[in-house]
Formats: sequence, structure tokens, C-alpha cells
Amino acid sequence: MTETLVSRRDLDFLLFEWLRVDALLERERFAEHSVATFKDVLALSEQIATTHFAPHNRKGDLEEPRLVDGEVHLLPEIAPALRAYAEAGLVGATMDHAVGGFQLPQTVFDACTAWFYAANMSTAAYNLLTIGNANLLLAHGTPEQVETFVVPMVEGRYFGTMALSEPQAGSSLADITTRAVPQADGSYRLFGDKMWISGADHRMGENIVHLVLAKAPGGGPGTRGISLFIVPKVLTGAAGAPGVHNDVVVTGLNHKMGARGTVNTVLALGDGTHSPGGQPGAIGYLVGEEHRGLSYMFHMMNEARVGIGLSGAALGYTGYLKSLAYARSRPQGRPLGQGNPDSPQVPLVEHVDVRRMLLTQKSYVEGALALVLYCGRLLDEERSAPDPAARERAAALLGLLTPIAKSWPAQWCLRANELAIQVHGGAGYTRDYDVEQHYRDNRLNPIHEGTHGIQALDLLNRKVVGDGGAALGLLAGLVEETAARATAASVPELGALAADLTRDWERLAEVSRRLAEVSDPAERSANASVYLEAAGHLVVAWIWLEQALATAGREEPFYRGKRAAAAHFFSHELPHARAQLELLMHNRSPALAVHADEL
Amino acid sequence: MTETLVSRRDLDFLLFEWLRVDALLERERFAEHSVATFKDVLALSEQIATTHFAPHNRKGDLEEPRLVDGEVHLLPEIAPALRAYAEAGLVGATMDHAVGGFQLPQTVFDACTAWFYAANMSTAAYNLLTIGNANLLLAHGTPEQVETFVVPMVEGRYFGTMALSEPQAGSSLADITTRAVPQADGSYRLFGDKMWISGADHRMGENIVHLVLAKAPGGGPGTRGISLFIVPKVLTGAAGAPGVHNDVVVTGLNHKMGARGTVNTVLALGDGTHSPGGQPGAIGYLVGEEHRGLSYMFHMMNEARVGIGLSGAALGYTGYLKSLAYARSRPQGRPLGQGNPDSPQVPLVEHVDVRRMLLTQKSYVEGALALVLYCGRLLDEERSAPDPAARERAAALLGLLTPIAKSWPAQWCLRANELAIQVHGGAGYTRDYDVEQHYRDNRLNPIHEGTHGIQALDLLNRKVVGDGGAALGLLAGLVEETAARATAASVPELGALAADLTRDWERLAEVSRRLAEVSDPAERSANASVYLEAAGHLVVAWIWLEQALATAGREEPFYRGKRAAAAHFFSHELPHARAQLELLMHNRSPALAVHADEL
Repeated sequence: MTETLVSRRDLDFLLFEWLRVDALLERERFAEHSVATFKDVLALSEQIATTHFAPHNRKGDLEEPRLVDGEVHLLPEIAPALRAYAEAGLVGATMDHAVGGFQLPQTVFDACTAWFYAANMSTAAYNLLTIGNANLLLAHGTPEQVETFVVPMVEGRYFGTMALSEPQAGSSLADITTRAVPQADGSYRLFGDKMWISGADHRMGENIVHLVLAKAPGGGPGTRGISLFIVPKVLTGAAGAPGVHNDVVVTGLNHKMGARGTVNTVLALGDGTHSPGGQPGAIGYLVGEEHRGLSYMFHMMNEARVGIGLSGAALGYTGYLKSLAYARSRPQGRPLGQGNPDSPQVPLVEHVDVRRMLLTQKSYVEGALALVLYCGRLLDEERSAPDPAARERAAALLGLLTPIAKSWPAQWCLRANELAIQVHGGAGYTRDYDVEQHYRDNRLNPIHEGTHGIQALDLLNRKVVGDGGAALGLLAGLVEETAARATAASVPELGALAADLTRDWERLAEVSRRLAEVSDPAERSANASVYLEAAGHLVVAWIWLEQALATAGREEPFYRGKRAAAAHFFSHELPHARAQLELLMHNRSPALAVHADEL
Repeated sequence: MTETLVSRRDLDFLLFEWLRVDALLERERFAEHSVATFKDVLALSEQIATTHFAPHNRKGDLEEPRLVDGEVHLLPEIAPALRAYAEAGLVGATMDHAVGGFQLPQTVFDACTAWFYAANMSTAAYNLLTIGNANLLLAHGTPEQVETFVVPMVEGRYFGTMALSEPQAGSSLADITTRAVPQADGSYRLFGDKMWISGADHRMGENIVHLVLAKAPGGGPGTRGISLFIVPKVLTGAAGAPGVHNDVVVTGLNHKMGARGTVNTVLALGDGTHSPGGQPGAIGYLVGEEHRGLSYMFHMMNEARVGIGLSGAALGYTGYLKSLAYARSRPQGRPLGQGNPDSPQVPLVEHVDVRRMLLTQKSYVEGALALVLYCGRLLDEERSAPDPAARERAAALLGLLTPIAKSWPAQWCLRANELAIQVHGGAGYTRDYDVEQHYRDNRLNPIHEGTHGIQALDLLNRKVVGDGGAALGLLAGLVEETAARATAASVPELGALAADLTRDWERLAEVSRRLAEVSDPAERSANASVYLEAAGHLVVAWIWLEQALATAGREEPFYRGKRAAAAHFFSHELPHARAQLELLMHNRSPALAVHADEL
């Protein structure tokens, strides 16, 4: 089982041979660590994921959360898994010692997280949501809020959620209508309905800390009027009597195609089910300043978006390994041109089209995982680099890469899961094998935490056009450096890839300049999704060249496989991005002109 | 509901404005029909599909077939739906009057079938399997076999299956081990296990006619030793006592990701559960000659493959219409550049990226449906053209197009369903909406009746290289004619599409010639799937140019929409095929060289 979650060999390569996380040990923040502690936490994560998370992955799919008398009942295997996770110190892994954390580099922690997502995305989500919630409060909460809410989360006693969407406001957060009414004691009372809230009720732990977007009086229209509140399920004594149920209840569950073990709810705030202090309204505590809630929430959202990418990569990864194992063991047919039917059947992997499907998966899933870990490495730079300019540079790159790190793995590792089913043939379409569940689970990732289309607008309009191309220029500089190293490596195959990549990145720069000149935002954005996909492929091609470079001079099968996947990505995938760049040069868009009644 | 299955307006366009099925009325075979009878049967199909098939589509997904004491129990709604279908005469719709059929053109019948697949793929499958079975026996059975088995199928009293695969032999039919032992009375006794057999048991109708591949003594090795047998569930008196249960039983069910309403079974032949005539072995009757079974089965398979394409197209189509209806009605956000948050939210369809997703779906699903109906039209030519050369030409084109008509809709209408979910956002990921089920159902289509990879080998090695490019040349000639008409139409936009298409088809011809020169079959086929996909896009681009031509001079929204979808396919889809053709020119294949231990 362990061998079909994530490849430890690959994680070691990415962390220690490519991203050189050992170099982080020189930083003050990580000084108490060593390569050995990094490896220990990786091994511990693998062990907990294998022992506590993977075994109930299918069961969590089959036995969905139930709403019983207003309370959510989960599969009983979920709570002990989360407890094991918290007891290992993983909730606070990257957090400061001051709150009980381990100050582990984000890069290493992301590698750990890959095990949990691969083992059981649905169960892992409860922890990951909690961590995101805690990180937001660490960044924007008061010391008292940190003490009251974050420390119990680190200890595994509290869980966290994020409550943004409403029935009438999904992608359009400007349209939320949940109201926050200021109270004399400095707290607020909240009223409204929230939709699509994951993990919003269960009976694990002592409390659930909801981070809720709502509108307080006096804010501007739209997103400018949004504030952020802590709404605990059970009052803590900070206001209201401790132990009293807050006026926040789950009124319904969403039944999904996949990711079924993560309860997804409709949440009512202030509907009068409970009356803390004898008064209706959910008691909430303001985070930071009024009317700046959305910017705080984006702190959590950006982290969550890279986390979605990681989840997509991990699901793709385990699907790849499972289809590889199947292809190695299942005999079927004979190679083309060796038609003697009296010879024994050969394993599927002997068929070149099956190897093509495996290599395609490999190029997607290892490319995606490397991209996400690279983002973690940027976050570590942002947090720990001594030079402020280096920190700023890392932050700019991370901002640019976040929509890609969210959407690229979600899109292409879903495709990887599609291929994992295909390698299994009819067997892959049955619930006797895991791959169909991975495919269903992974289909969530292009939707939540900002759809594919939202990421496209973020990339093109905010991250590229919005900063005058500065961050894109930074990244292009890195690509240039990689290409120069690849050319200097005097391995002919790498030089050819570098030449391709350089030409394509120049084309991307040109396309980006052209699009920036289009003043009408709808016209400029008509092919924003195409731009996102093309840029994503160009970024991942760069990541593959980086990986191939890190294998130079090594001939063991692992390294040869890396180079084969890089070559495959360049020969079979990059041409599609090139075609998209040509489309973007002219920015043709029949969709812009078509009327709703012509569809 | 009706409005979100298939567009009747589009069917009328395709049949009467584009494919001119009215011209078929001049043929002797269809002489008793009229445009009015064609329209009547379309209306009747829509009505039965809407009334009897669509209402239990979700229920069939939730309440799967069960195996109880060796018998399969289905959802009770399925039998009356199939009865309504048969009572309307649809089982025999295309068959000869002599067996109770209506001699309806295949093209019209395929359009009817689209309603049933869109309404409920799982329930429709029982009928469609029966029809395929009956058509095989009409082509290769004896008059007595037709009388005994086909006529009751036409009357809706018998059902049919096809039993090819075995646990150890999926795609590799050469490796089947089911044995057929000749008996003194001319019948056979069969022994073996069959896998993935759809519809192999239920309690509807009076009998189930299995068409079973097995090896009789004296055949050559591999596929050359395969014969085809009729194995009825209940003996009919042709041999053995009538009403006696044959020794064929379901021993297990496969539980699938989708298509759950169609029972899929493990079938045991001759395991001794029953002993007809006091002797073990399933009684079977030879179809045609010994050792020629696979060629007969391909008669059914080719029909079934186009049927899979139709199923994919129909599922894509209904998903498209449902996401279009959602996008028209669901308010969310404001157009880019119109940011006043006090203005009301606009429907999703007002966002250009949503229109892009809708137009992409439209180009896939209407392109796929048109392709499949074109194949139906070829079959009608093959069956009814007075000129033998015309019949032969139609057969050659149909042979070439069959792997594309099977795989293209399966691949791209699955992608359409993915986009239908995306248009719905989070709602589309829940089981409250139909689109997630369509996506799961449609995932079957690239697998069964020959996987994507098998279709790719069939296209490249048998249909293109195998006949020296003759059929491809025929098709290229048709494309040339279309391009000439488009250029002559002196509508600038069509002329530009025609020029693109001509250039791309020339490139395909060049690529095909190059691949034909590669003697090593594994090397030649290393990118066969890429070839299949590129050729598929070029064929569908041609189909779109054909459709656009058929709209010339018309300005109603329906026709403008057709032209927008054609333009979108050419601007956003065709460039990907172009990139694939360049790849194929060099036929680079890292997958060819990679070793199993490097993956």
C-alpha cells in the first residue's frame, strides 16, 4: 500500500537533490532542524498516512456523513486518524515554537502533506482546513485570539473552517449578505446563511472555529464592506458563557460526487436555534480591522490554493503508482509484431501505448508535485531569507505562481486519474479499484477555492497585467538561468529542451505584452483560461527542465525515468501550449461575440 | 426536461437540412416512408425517452442491480421502459419488414437513439445490446435462428447480449479459453467464464440470447480458432427441452463508477449449476461456420462502436443543454469592467469564460452527434444505394470512420461533461444535479467495445496503413469537395476555415505516408493514440465546415450559433491537432524507449 501512495524516492530527490532544503538549515528559523529531522517527519507522515488514513479511504466514500438531529455524524475512523496526526505535532508543524509549533520548513511539510492527501483526501481536509485557519489567525489575530483559538488547534482539540460562500454568492463574494451587528462589549452578532462550508460540524474535538465573512455597518459596497469574524461553535468565555452553544448550526448537507468523507454543509448563523446570552445571533469576534476581511481571508485562500494544487498532485500521484503497479502485474496480449498466440501474454507495461499513458501521468503528477513544492520553497524564502529583497522577490514569484499551482495540478492530475482508469481498463471503472475514487475526488479541485476561470482572471489581470509584467519578468529571468545551465551542461538532449523553452517563454512574454495593451477587460480576458493553461504548461516545462538538470550524470533507472518524463512533456505536451500561444497572439474569441440565445 | 435532453431543432437541421435524409425516400428500401414518418418516429422517441427513460435515470444510479439467489434484480422502472420502447416498434426499427421491422434509415434511427441515451444510458443499453445481437444474427444466422431468436427480440420478448471478454482476456481476445464441445445433434456444449458481460441476467422478458465467443476443436491458435455461438438462457426446443434453464449463470456483479443501471456480470458457462438434458455444459448453437466467429462478432462490434460514439455524444449533449439552462438562469457576479456592486448580478452566461465553456461543449457535442449521424448516413448508403460502387465506397468510408466515431465522442464529450460540471460550479459536483452522473456514465465510453488505444491501432494499422491509404484518400477527396464549396460560397469566414482545413488535411496525408513507411510496428504505433486524436479533430473540423456551409444565408440565432461553434472549433481546437501532426511528423516517442523499471 505504502508504495502506491507517493514515491519516497521522488520526495527525497525533489527535497534534497533539487530544492536543496538542507540549505534552509542555515536560516535562524530552521536552525534547530537537521536533514535527519526532516527525514524523520517524512517517515512519520508516511507511516501515519498509511496506518490511519489510507485504510478508511474507500469506507469514507461509501458511508457518507449524516445529519442527525442537527449534528453531523462522521465515519468513526476519521477522529482517531486526525488525533494521530495532531499527536504527531503535524497541525503546528510549520508554526512558531511560541504556539507549540515545530518551525518546519513549508517545503518539507508540503511533502509530508502529500502522503495524507494521497492516502485520504477527505479525512486530511479536516486537518488542512484547521491549519489554514490557524495560520490566518497567527497572521492577523490578536495575541488573545491566538491563545484562545490557535493553541487548542495546534493541540488537536479544536478544528477550523472557512465560511465565505453563500447560497446567492459563490464566486461573487461582493454579494454576500451575512450581517454583523456590533455589540456593546466589542463583539458582534452575525445573521445569515453560508453555503459549501466544509467541516462545519462534527463531534470530534472540543470546538470548531469558523472564520466567517460578513458585512458590518459602515462598509463600502461590494467586497470593500466585508469584515472577518471568528465564530466558535462553542463559546469559550471570551464573551458569552463558556461551554454554551453559539447560534451557528448546520441546516443541510451537500451530497457530492467525490470527496465524500469531508462533510460539506449549509451553515445558518443567528437563526435562533440557540440563544447565547438569551439573545439571538451568532456571537463573533472581529479579526483585525473592520472592512478589511477579504484581504485577511486571502491570506488563507492563497495558502489553500497551493494546498488544492498539492491535493490534486497527490491524488494524481497515487493513481499513477496504482496504474503502474497494475500495468506491471496484469498480463494482457502481446507486443505488436510478436503475434505468436502460443507465447505467454506479457504485462500491460510492455505495450508502448500503455507506457505512453504511464509516462503522461508521470509527467503530470511529478511535474505538479515539483511545482507545488517549489511554491513551498518560495514561502520558506519569504519567511526566512535574511535579505528583505530576497523575501520580496519570493513573495512576488509566489503570488504569480499561486493561480498556476492551484489550477495546473487540478486540471492535469485529474487527467492523470482519467489515464489511471484507462490503464486499468474495465477494472478501473469498478469500485474494486481505487482509481475511480481518485478521479471523482480530484474533480473537486478545479472548482473549490476559486474555480479555474477565477484563477485565470487572477493570473492574467492581477498577477501579470496588474503589476506591469514585473513578476512575470522575474520568473522569465529564472527560466533563462535554467536554460543557460542546461545549455552549459553540454548534454545534447537538455540543450535542445532549453532552446525550445527559451523560444516559448519569449513568445509568452510577447503574448502577455499584447494582452496588456487590450483595454477592454472582457476582450482581454476572453481567452484568460487559455492563457492560464499555456502559462501553466510553460512553467511546468521549466520545472521539468530543472528536474532533468538535477539528474545530470546519473544513470540509475530513477534518473533515466525523470529524463524520459521531461522529454515526453516537451515532445507531447509543450506543443499544445505553443498552439495556445499562437491563438492568444491573435486573441480570437468566438465566445466573446456569441449571444446567449445562439447557444 | 425534454428541452435538456437533445435539441430537436438540431436533429432536424442535421437530418433534413444537412444530411438530406429525405433523399433516401427514393430508395426502394425506404420507399414506404416519408418525411412525415421520419418526424413521427423522432417525436415518438422523444416522448418515450422523456416519459419512460429519463425519470428513473438517477434512481438507476442510486439503486444498483442486485444478485439474489443467482438471479439479477433490476430497478422495477426499467422493464416498463423497455416494453414501451419495444411496443413502439423501435427494436426492429431499421430491420426488414420480413422480421417485423420498419426499414427505417439508420440515420433517422440514430437520431431517435440519441434521445434514449441522453435520457438514460443505462436503461437504453438493454435495448441497444439486443438490437446489435439481432442484427448480427440477421447477417450471419440461419433462417431458423432468425425465426427462433430475432423475431422474439423484435417483439420485445427476448433480450440479447454479447459475451466476448474473459477474466484473463479483455482486449486480447486471442486468449479466450472458453471451450465448445461438438455434440452428436449438431449443437455444442460450452464451458468457461465470461467477464464484463452487460445485461447477462435479469427477469425481464422471456429469454436472454447470449452471443458467445468460444474455441471449438480444430481451430488455429489465437483469434483464428474462435467460433461464435448462440447460448440462450432458457432452452427453446431447438435442442434440449424447451423452457429448461441452460447451464449459463451469473456468478458475480461488477460495481461500477457509473452506468450503474446496466447490470454488468461475470457469467459462468457449463459450471454445472443446471444440467440441461441431464448433462453439464451450456448448450450452444453455432453461428455461421466454425472458426470464423471473430469476423461475425466484428459485425456487431462495428455497429456497437458507432453506438458508443452516439452514447458519448448524447450524454455530452444533455450535459451541455443542462449547463446552458443553468448558465442562463443562475445569477452570479457582474461582467468584467462593470464592477458596480449595487447593480444586480447577471446570469452566468453573461461571463465570457462561461460562454467559452458552453461554446466548447457545443463544438464537441454537436460535432460528435453530427459525426455519428454521418456514419449512419454511410450505413444507409451501404445498404440502399443502387450503385454497387457507391455501396462499396460508403463501406470503406464507414470502416475508416468507425474508430473515430467510437473514440472521438467518447473522449471529447466526456470533456464536455467535465465542463458542464464546471459551469455549474460547486452545484455541479453534487448529486442534486444530473451533470455529475453524466460524467461518471460517460467515463465508460473510452473503455468498452475496444479501448481508446485499440481504436488507435485499428485506425492507423488496419484502416490507414492496411489499405495503402485508399480509404483515407476517399475521405480526403470529400474534404476537398467541401473546402471547394466553402471557398465558392464567397463568405469570407468560410473561405478562411476551408483554407485551414485543406492545409491540415494535406499534412495528415503526409504524416500518414510517413508512418506507413515505418516498418517496425511498435515504432509505427508508438503515437497511434496521438494519430487517432489528430485525425479525429480533422474529421470533426470537416464536419463543422459542412454544418457551417449548410447554414449559409441564414441569420436566425440557431444558424449563427452553428457558425460560432464552427469558428470556435477551428480557432480553439484545431490548433491542438496541428501540434499533434507536427509531433507525428517526427514521431518522437520517449515512451518507446522507456523501461518499465524507469517508470
